[in-house]
Amino acid sequence: MSEVPTRTVFFVSDGTGITAETLGHSLLAQFPEGRFRQVRAPFVDDIDKAIECAAQIREAAAADGVRPIVFSTLVNDDTIAALHKADALFLDLFERFIGPLETELGQRSTHAVGRFHGIADSINYKHRIEAINFAMAHDDGVSSDGELAEADVILVGVSRSGKTPTSLYLAMQFGVKAANYPLIPEDFERNKLPGELHKYRTKLFGLTIAPERLSQIRQERRPNSRYASFENCRYEIDAAHKLMRRENIRWLDSTTKSIEEISATILQTVRVDRPGF
Amino acid sequence: MSEVPTRTVFFVSDGTGITAETLGHSLLAQFPEGRFRQVRAPFVDDIDKAIECAAQIREAAAADGVRPIVFSTLVNDDTIAALHKADALFLDLFERFIGPLETELGQRSTHAVGRFHGIADSINYKHRIEAINFAMAHDDGVSSDGELAEADVILVGVSRSGKTPTSLYLAMQFGVKAANYPLIPEDFERNKLPGELHKYRTKLFGLTIAPERLSQIRQERRPNSRYASFENCRYEIDAAHKLMRRENIRWLDSTTKSIEEISATILQTVRVDRPGF
Repeated sequence: MSEVPTRTVFFVSDGTGITAETLGHSLLAQFPEGRFRQVRAPFVDDIDKAIECAAQIREAAAADGVRPIVFSTLVNDDTIAALHKADALFLDLFERFIGPLETELGQRSTHAVGRFHGIADSINYKHRIEAINFAMAHDDGVSSDGELAEADVILVGVSRSGKTPTSLYLAMQFGVKAANYPLIPEDFERNKLPGELHKYRTKLFGLTIAPERLSQIRQERRPNSRYASFENCRYEIDAAHKLMRRENIRWLDSTTKSIEEISATILQTVRVDRPGF
Repeated sequence: MSEVPTRTVFFVSDGTGITAETLGHSLLAQFPEGRFRQVRAPFVDDIDKAIECAAQIREAAAADGVRPIVFSTLVNDDTIAALHKADALFLDLFERFIGPLETELGQRSTHAVGRFHGIADSINYKHRIEAINFAMAHDDGVSSDGELAEADVILVGVSRSGKTPTSLYLAMQFGVKAANYPLIPEDFERNKLPGELHKYRTKLFGLTIAPERLSQIRQERRPNSRYASFENCRYEIDAAHKLMRRENIRWLDSTTKSIEEISATILQTVRVDRPGF
């Protein structure tokens, strides 16, 4: 059997290219045997840049011996025509979907270049930046009295259970203000939630993790420490489970989950009082 | 003229729904006059959940008086069929694009549920989490000697010019390790780059911002301070420009740009030595 050739995949956009890349990655993940080399081509917002991009596509085709795959979110007809002069499998997101949407809504789309990523929506954007600042300022149990009232979600869990990257993802992707609080041995000895968390019970969400995995992650940080030892990890996780069960905190196991999956689950569970949630 | 009715828009997925939502937002941004109410429906991974989701779609249609728009990344045929029993404009990302890809690649797709977001790609995922930890540990000039050697990008600029959210976005979306360093009055007096930055000249990228906007952002943090005054902001920005020009640092103005746009521009400029860049 012949070997699968490497294909070059282009993500072409008149804006950042992030929508094209997100969809492209999702679709290519359905072909685990494929071998793909990825090229980003953002800000292709005039014909000259489209002609240059078409040349790059032709070069890749010659180098690979197979034609490239192009995920595109271009909205300008002339730019699209210039790009299509290269030979490739073009998967045009705009072209496929905008027609049915125009018919359904009874409105013409603006065909506005650079708007494709939707960040022109400045209220949402402002929420996201505020939420990122909030997550940075309320990471790892850092919070002044009363500030947690502003949080949409408060994550709790033992050190290195995934709270910080999840808080940041919730902020970045959804504009959700997430604080996070570590559960530490002192909390287990007192058998109480830290600080003023009891006041915000409806906002709490717990993360847990398999002790083997936790020990592995902690070893990378502090090799051969008591902190990283399997015994200690198992003790902390057991104690955290007891505390969360007693306090009636919803939780999930982050061991085999991505921050995307954890965040989507949290948003199904914790009620965020804002339009869009 | 009659008022535009509010439409309910569903983002339906057997996974997190983030791909459906990203594409949906991009397309809806082309209809600035539309009024949309958004509903996320992640983890629709069996027929029962699809039937329940179809019921939600019918309810929304009845409440709005117009049929909803559904962006879907479902991959299972039976689940899709159950969902399509509701009346809506279905924009199926998987269905539209997977056929042409299968033909082109000469491979069957796995139709693997929950894989659509592509995060099964665990090497990339590991890079992203490491990069987030790196950005957190190297925010705002915090770096021990030698650690910057690991950075892919080092952002510089005056306080509140957008360095921190951009560093985090580079990490989260692209797995790029970004440190950031504030340029402060002491640097301007010495007219030199802070710390050991001169050693990493090829990794440096500057952010600047209009003094009016900077003053506004700083006022929200420290009202009526010298730090936030327009005069001081103008002084710091002028001095930063001089320093960056003298040191030959590429930069861009973040005033009207999103972190997505800033990040995509940085990746076009700074060379990241890793597959995929």
